[in-house]
Amino acid sequence: MSGVSSADTPAAAASLPSLRARTFTIIDVAATALFGIEGAAAAVHAGLDVLGVLVVGFVVALAGGMLRDVLLGDLPPAALRTPSRIITAIAAAAAAFLVVGVVDAIPGGVLITLDALGLALFAMTGAEKASSRGANLWVVTILGGITATGGGVLRDVLLLRTPVVLTESVYGTAALAGALATGIVMSFTRRPRTAMLVGFVVAFSLRMLAVTFGWQLPRAL
Amino acid sequence: MSGVSSADTPAAAASLPSLRARTFTIIDVAATALFGIEGAAAAVHAGLDVLGVLVVGFVVALAGGMLRDVLLGDLPPAALRTPSRIITAIAAAAAAFLVVGVVDAIPGGVLITLDALGLALFAMTGAEKASSRGANLWVVTILGGITATGGGVLRDVLLLRTPVVLTESVYGTAALAGALATGIVMSFTRRPRTAMLVGFVVAFSLRMLAVTFGWQLPRAL
Amino acid sequence: MSGVSSADTPAAAASLPSLRARTFTIIDVAATALFGIEGAAAAVHAGLDVLGVLVVGFVVALAGGMLRDVLLGDLPPAALRTPSRIITAIAAAAAAFLVVGVVDAIPGGVLITLDALGLALFAMTGAEKASSRGANLWVVTILGGITATGGGVLRDVLLLRTPVVLTESVYGTAALAGALATGIVMSFTRRPRTAMLVGFVVAFSLRMLAVTFGWQLPRAL
Repeated sequence: MSGVSSADTPAAAASLPSLRARTFTIIDVAATALFGIEGAAAAVHAGLDVLGVLVVGFVVALAGGMLRDVLLGDLPPAALRTPSRIITAIAAAAAAFLVVGVVDAIPGGVLITLDALGLALFAMTGAEKASSRGANLWVVTILGGITATGGGVLRDVLLLRTPVVLTESVYGTAALAGALATGIVMSFTRRPRTAMLVGFVVAFSLRMLAVTFGWQLPRAL
Repeated sequence: MSGVSSADTPAAAASLPSLRARTFTIIDVAATALFGIEGAAAAVHAGLDVLGVLVVGFVVALAGGMLRDVLLGDLPPAALRTPSRIITAIAAAAAAFLVVGVVDAIPGGVLITLDALGLALFAMTGAEKASSRGANLWVVTILGGITATGGGVLRDVLLLRTPVVLTESVYGTAALAGALATGIVMSFTRRPRTAMLVGFVVAFSLRMLAVTFGWQLPRAL
Repeated sequence: MSGVSSADTPAAAASLPSLRARTFTIIDVAATALFGIEGAAAAVHAGLDVLGVLVVGFVVALAGGMLRDVLLGDLPPAALRTPSRIITAIAAAAAAFLVVGVVDAIPGGVLITLDALGLALFAMTGAEKASSRGANLWVVTILGGITATGGGVLRDVLLLRTPVVLTESVYGTAALAGALATGIVMSFTRRPRTAMLVGFVVAFSLRMLAVTFGWQLPRAL
């Protein structure tokens, strides 16, 4: 049990709900903003006007989590119950639109790292939510993967591209592995923060290692 | 309070529900038929057979409202609770299939005006529904926009086109502006018919002005 | 009433629920595996890696039924409530990935027949589920059609192809006809197994006849 943060000890249990809610909120804002910026940058380079940029930023940031909530039957989706996530996504996309030159000046390696961060954050929060609602481990893994990659898939469909998750090796795989790790730790320990931490490390590490070493998944033909 | 229709005065409040329901029904039938015809015409010109034409007409007419209802958690979607909207959409698409020569003979300006009518009608009804269910102003605006443009987005995805809402300047913008106006008037007056009238005028005017004067939204690059 | 199987007689009514559940399960497993194999084969030939193959197999096998359940408000979708359908779809897709040479060696006529079987099975189970929940005949027909063809539509959208249901004559039509037949028999007899049998025969026969004789639906232009 070493490596378990103090907030996971029984003594801290009373304050866990608010702590967990606060941790969740910070993570969600961070991942939402990251994906909103990325979506907006992709839309700018696809030649879309400012509305198209805001729409694609919104979609990349929030559609994955909204699809997860639809499939869980948790409606309206969490992203639509308060304005905070919507404002985060749209503000991030608007900022990226205004300073797209700055975004473009970010080195590719930094962008890939930020994207891997968002991917890992969403995979673990999506998996944790599904797990805390009693979903089986298959569904926890799949919904974590959908939370992390669903927005990007919809972006690619709207921009008429083959979805990155189907072509980029070890992208969806990293999200699914992180979600699976989150689900396994959840089912053994019932400690959401530990589970999310493990899932985050698995997803982020796997994605970064795959990019660094050019790992590819096998093909049949 | 000048400009407020008599049905919005307190004296008329008792009959408002049925009046509102009837107004809603007439508007919905009109907008559904308009979008069903448009979707069918697009499918005919894409070379689809009669089933494809009916499917695309159905999608353009009803998918936006169905997506709104999924996100509101109002399931099954209103369009599927009675046969009336389904029959309207399919009958309109079938009629367009049979007399596509007549539809094609309609001058472009008339078609754009009819499309703007459908856009404005769906934007305001979608916004009013979200608002009456207690959604915040951001969600009211977004769901009004989705109601008005979601069917067209799905049509473009199915026909492998970049969605019009991402490329046509001031199309989605008009829908969102009308939905926002509906939401603002709703939150200040709680008078659905006034709010919908204002939203309709905003969306329709903005779209027609943009088409007439060739307004474009800014691009970043 | 001749032609009604003995399980539909009043004497057998007591055991009908479990019989129906078992029949349903067998049919669902068969149709899910068939569509999972087909989706995986399509993904292999599109050059996707093993994750892409599993994703597309999962989508083709389960997305239609999941969309049906979202629109019925039956959430989480049945496919996500137990691991069985998920495992079936993924195992079938994995098997197809491993022995794609074997799948490719299957004669085209056999593949078309297997696909028609899956189409007919999903059309009738989708229609029966919608009907047993009190949906009107239009919705029963549409949801049967969505159950049967929704996964294939999503596959084509992800692989940037025009959906087969919009281009292949008498594919969606066969599904809709089978669903309609199921709905009509359900509303007259309230015997699910008879209704599903009739719907299956209608959908499967119509699809196979259309393929055999090259039937086409009319086009407007």
